[in-house]
Amino acid sequence: MDLPVFYAPDILPEATAYTMNEDTSKYCIQVLRHEKGDKVLLADGRGHKFTADITDDNRKKCVVRILDRETVPPPARALRVAISFTKNAARIEWFLEKATEIGIQTIIPLVTQRTEKEKIKAERLQNILVSAMLQSQQFYLPDLQEPQAFDKVIKHHHDPQRLIAHCLPEQKQALRDVLQPGKDTLILIGPEGDFTPDEIKGALEEGFVPVSLGNTRLRTETAGMVAVAIIATSF
Amino acid sequence: MDLPVFYAPDILPEATAYTMNEDTSKYCIQVLRHEKGDKVLLADGRGHKFTADITDDNRKKCVVRILDRETVPPPARALRVAISFTKNAARIEWFLEKATEIGIQTIIPLVTQRTEKEKIKAERLQNILVSAMLQSQQFYLPDLQEPQAFDKVIKHHHDPQRLIAHCLPEQKQALRDVLQPGKDTLILIGPEGDFTPDEIKGALEEGFVPVSLGNTRLRTETAGMVAVAIIATSF
Repeated sequence: MDLPVFYAPDILPEATAYTMNEDTSKYCIQVLRHEKGDKVLLADGRGHKFTADITDDNRKKCVVRILDRETVPPPARALRVAISFTKNAARIEWFLEKATEIGIQTIIPLVTQRTEKEKIKAERLQNILVSAMLQSQQFYLPDLQEPQAFDKVIKHHHDPQRLIAHCLPEQKQALRDVLQPGKDTLILIGPEGDFTPDEIKGALEEGFVPVSLGNTRLRTETAGMVAVAIIATSF
Repeated sequence: MDLPVFYAPDILPEATAYTMNEDTSKYCIQVLRHEKGDKVLLADGRGHKFTADITDDNRKKCVVRILDRETVPPPARALRVAISFTKNAARIEWFLEKATEIGIQTIIPLVTQRTEKEKIKAERLQNILVSAMLQSQQFYLPDLQEPQAFDKVIKHHHDPQRLIAHCLPEQKQALRDVLQPGKDTLILIGPEGDFTPDEIKGALEEGFVPVSLGNTRLRTETAGMVAVAIIATSF
């Protein structure tokens, strides 16, 4: 049985003990019913994995003793997804959860001409990323960036592999045929209603490669998830 | 702009007119505000695509006239997923929606030793499949079967490609490396807590090929979606 993982964003690398915050303490002691002496893992979201045991099972201030620390190797390459957030918050939240589980390094909320949602609830979304990271036993928290305008994203990101998934019936290849595994990748996922022809033209001029995610019409969050599933399992 | 698609499960192939049921009429006339003369598409979920126009925009009994009918070619191969349903209904409902959007032919609720949910709300789930089919502009409704016991599934399904995704650290290959595109495929996705070693052994004895869906620990519904995303885009 795997040890449960708890989030310790403010733990110091050389720590010998750590006090969980109130929410985490409650979750650990009251919900999961851990007790003094139980072994747990801590993740700081920056690749450090601490093995610890509970020395004080206080349900508001759970204290653990650090037994071991290791640095989990970072992913060999970065997967960045710039995606137009959906009007329906649940849909993009679902994407964030699933993308984190599968393996993503950076999420950029993309503001396109047809994007209807430009503001994000950063704290709520951050909590979703943390839960998904812990749930999937990972130790690097994805970086959720501030919303960025489409033009800025296509001009200022220089990942070696830059892709745009769009629905226009123009010449494009299947993502899996274009994909070069092992390269840092940025993929753009458009809003409901797709990118505008001008946006697509602009991206192609900047060197983005147009790709298709299959033969069916996907919702934004589904397109994002399919892209992550294909790219993350190709490295 | 694509025409909106409405569900007409009981339309006859040779129909020249059709009256939508009350829910669909309400959605078409009241929610989407279609009017007499508007063009729409109808899907019977069995591959027939009807082009029609509205002759009576009654919000309870919307009547359309059939202008054209075509048969959409069926998928070249079948993708069947036997998946243990999650205790949290919302999670498996997301899976059903996303799998339908991406492209799946059959869903078998799989009853394993560790499955906590053996009953399904067939009507509610059926509605999710229909919505996702229409949303993604497809014309074949996936077949949601009755829950089946694991032993029955591994013995009585003879798709040419049979896979089992499990988490045990035994020898298994990445799904994308094993996958033979173009073959009818059945893949088994286990419950939270995974298949038991006995179940995995039983499946291998029946000729199932063990596969991995990546390096992270995926929830059941995420594993199902990753499998569908990889397989459906490989054909």
